[in-house]
Amino acid sequence: MKRAPAWRLAAVLAAVLAAVLVGCAQPELRGTGDLGLVVERAAGRVKLIETSGRTALATIAGLGDLSHASIVYSRDGRYGYVFGRDGGLSRVDLLLARLDRRVVQAGNAIGGAISQDGRLIAVANYEPGGVRIFDAATLEPLADIPAAFGDGTRRAKVVGIADAPGQRFVFSLFEAGEIWVADLSDPRRPQVTRHRDIGKQPYDGLITPDGRHYIAGLFGEDGLALLDLWNPQAGVRRILGGYGRGEEPLPVYKMPHLRGWAIAGGHAVLPAIGRKEVLVVETAGWSEAARIPVHGQPVFVIAQPGGRRAWVNFAFPDNDTVQVIDLPSRSVVKTLKPGRAVLHMEFTARGEQVWVSSRDDDSVIVYDPASFAEIARIRADKPSGIFLSSRAFATGF
Amino acid sequence: MKRAPAWRLAAVLAAVLAAVLVGCAQPELRGTGDLGLVVERAAGRVKLIETSGRTALATIAGLGDLSHASIVYSRDGRYGYVFGRDGGLSRVDLLLARLDRRVVQAGNAIGGAISQDGRLIAVANYEPGGVRIFDAATLEPLADIPAAFGDGTRRAKVVGIADAPGQRFVFSLFEAGEIWVADLSDPRRPQVTRHRDIGKQPYDGLITPDGRHYIAGLFGEDGLALLDLWNPQAGVRRILGGYGRGEEPLPVYKMPHLRGWAIAGGHAVLPAIGRKEVLVVETAGWSEAARIPVHGQPVFVIAQPGGRRAWVNFAFPDNDTVQVIDLPSRSVVKTLKPGRAVLHMEFTARGEQVWVSSRDDDSVIVYDPASFAEIARIRADKPSGIFLSSRAFATGF
Repeated sequence: MKRAPAWRLAAVLAAVLAAVLVGCAQPELRGTGDLGLVVERAAGRVKLIETSGRTALATIAGLGDLSHASIVYSRDGRYGYVFGRDGGLSRVDLLLARLDRRVVQAGNAIGGAISQDGRLIAVANYEPGGVRIFDAATLEPLADIPAAFGDGTRRAKVVGIADAPGQRFVFSLFEAGEIWVADLSDPRRPQVTRHRDIGKQPYDGLITPDGRHYIAGLFGEDGLALLDLWNPQAGVRRILGGYGRGEEPLPVYKMPHLRGWAIAGGHAVLPAIGRKEVLVVETAGWSEAARIPVHGQPVFVIAQPGGRRAWVNFAFPDNDTVQVIDLPSRSVVKTLKPGRAVLHMEFTARGEQVWVSSRDDDSVIVYDPASFAEIARIRADKPSGIFLSSRAFATGF
Repeated sequence: MKRAPAWRLAAVLAAVLAAVLVGCAQPELRGTGDLGLVVERAAGRVKLIETSGRTALATIAGLGDLSHASIVYSRDGRYGYVFGRDGGLSRVDLLLARLDRRVVQAGNAIGGAISQDGRLIAVANYEPGGVRIFDAATLEPLADIPAAFGDGTRRAKVVGIADAPGQRFVFSLFEAGEIWVADLSDPRRPQVTRHRDIGKQPYDGLITPDGRHYIAGLFGEDGLALLDLWNPQAGVRRILGGYGRGEEPLPVYKMPHLRGWAIAGGHAVLPAIGRKEVLVVETAGWSEAARIPVHGQPVFVIAQPGGRRAWVNFAFPDNDTVQVIDLPSRSVVKTLKPGRAVLHMEFTARGEQVWVSSRDDDSVIVYDPASFAEIARIRADKPSGIFLSSRAFATGF
């Protein structure tokens, strides 16, 4: 059959047109400030969500073992860096809703951080124990900081890594009982300051929101280790000697997360270990000011930004409950039952929403923290951590 | 002349192809977290900048009179709301680098704010005196709050407007000597709480970064007015009776901006009025702790996020100078000469850069605040205020 030349040409041009249309099928333009990722732990996926309409936008798979996974964000808010338990470091593109690149950089890892200038990613590794530094744009490895201690032949598990001002990362060495401050001003030549004998078995750490204090929790003894980053030559001092499991340890169902600490109005509120209490600590002298009885053993205690309240979740068997504490009166003002196995809570940056994950109900529930009304419920596959992109603009996450 | 049908069809399809290409010529996908706007005051324009590569991306014109202009950002970081002196409220699209929409909503205005949930824009007006509320998406007017006082026939100029948690806006009435708290939970029915006799002629105000305290500066007498938003029924109290021009007023070349106040480590540092000093105030009791001598009459005192320093600029004739104060030692550690008529300074959210505008040198200079090195210099037409999109994630801007 013979076709007219016009139709042949038309077919070619139509094909070109179709190719161009596919090529320019960019996702809709949008800002990145209201995006976030929810970890779907068992499935090795993250769910992309947005907080303006409170909806799920996409699911991104292929991230490996996401038990205890955490996420930090690029300085432009476009990329999330997912730290997996299996040593995987994955860069997720929030605008294209896809895995951008991924490296498996260790055998066993526990979180990471992004440098103050956004150019470096640090990962804290259990096996081999140490910190590895990567280029945030390419995930190219830049430096390796082995957590060698004692006679130098052993390596400690690294925990509680946090970014600090001045291109520094601060972290703790579990077996060594040390806190290290690594200055990455020259990314290929880390300058490490070691603080020794800081206490037995530091198991987690945090930096206060003002970027000034690094605090490590101790598993092997009572108390916490405090380093003033404004005055590091003063060394690490022990605070809150009564904080811990005590001389006759209580059964602890889950060691609380230090990273959730709330600080407001000159006081920090933090989960007691093994006790059904939240501790109030005055931050001028770091001494205990009060204890607030709560429903169970607290896991996270998180302050509402711009508010006078903190939200608390609990260890098993009380992990179907969330309580809200009024900080000035030091009293519980609300008890909620969001669902089974509440693992995490995340406020929007200005505090008008709080997102709560219920693992065993496969749900993320969004509350209005002023009225306690449920304003959205999103299906997710065994959700654990919730990480909003506004973390890009805070120190110490 | 006769053409073959094939060529006629080809021409049509080529035209279609070209139209499609133009239609899909979207700007490159990018995150919005590292964007910002610099006010080019005299020209009625803003310059779009980005802080990752530290470059200017575009200039957006048609914004009217931008003397004393300020900018807030949408919760997704895509739009900047520019408050002009001529009552113009302009919504600028940072991704498309264009004016999205604009209303002239009053004869004379002085700043505005965005509600906690990002849905409402409030503008503070001199003429007619009051606050007007707009839908952040459409700029449709939603509510009008006339600043009527006395017998109700006079209207005061509104100054020092700031967003507060709970969908509230707080602002001061200059001629009335009042502070009003407007609750916009129902956007068309503002609920206003009036605090009277707060002091003579409040001229500016701020909310502390924790969202708790609103503080108004007084032009007509010494001292400041403080409202604890956690405990508003306690009313407004006067603090820092020595803060002001004094009994025999000094010549004041420029009233300092309260909005620049730095708060760090339990202390606020603020510009003295008319004196070549920066005041240190302890925030637990709001009493004066120290005075730090500086180069000139301070205008802005701005804390480095995550740092131990504050940057200070000065009124004419010392406005070619910026000084850096170390807060723990309360001493000046650096004096810089960025250019002529330094009007504003803005830190990136995590404190690794500071942007400084030099109006009379038509330049914006970017410093590394750790080394004080100049790391970029951008041409701008008589730049004044610098506003980064990370302001979207903070309370009280």
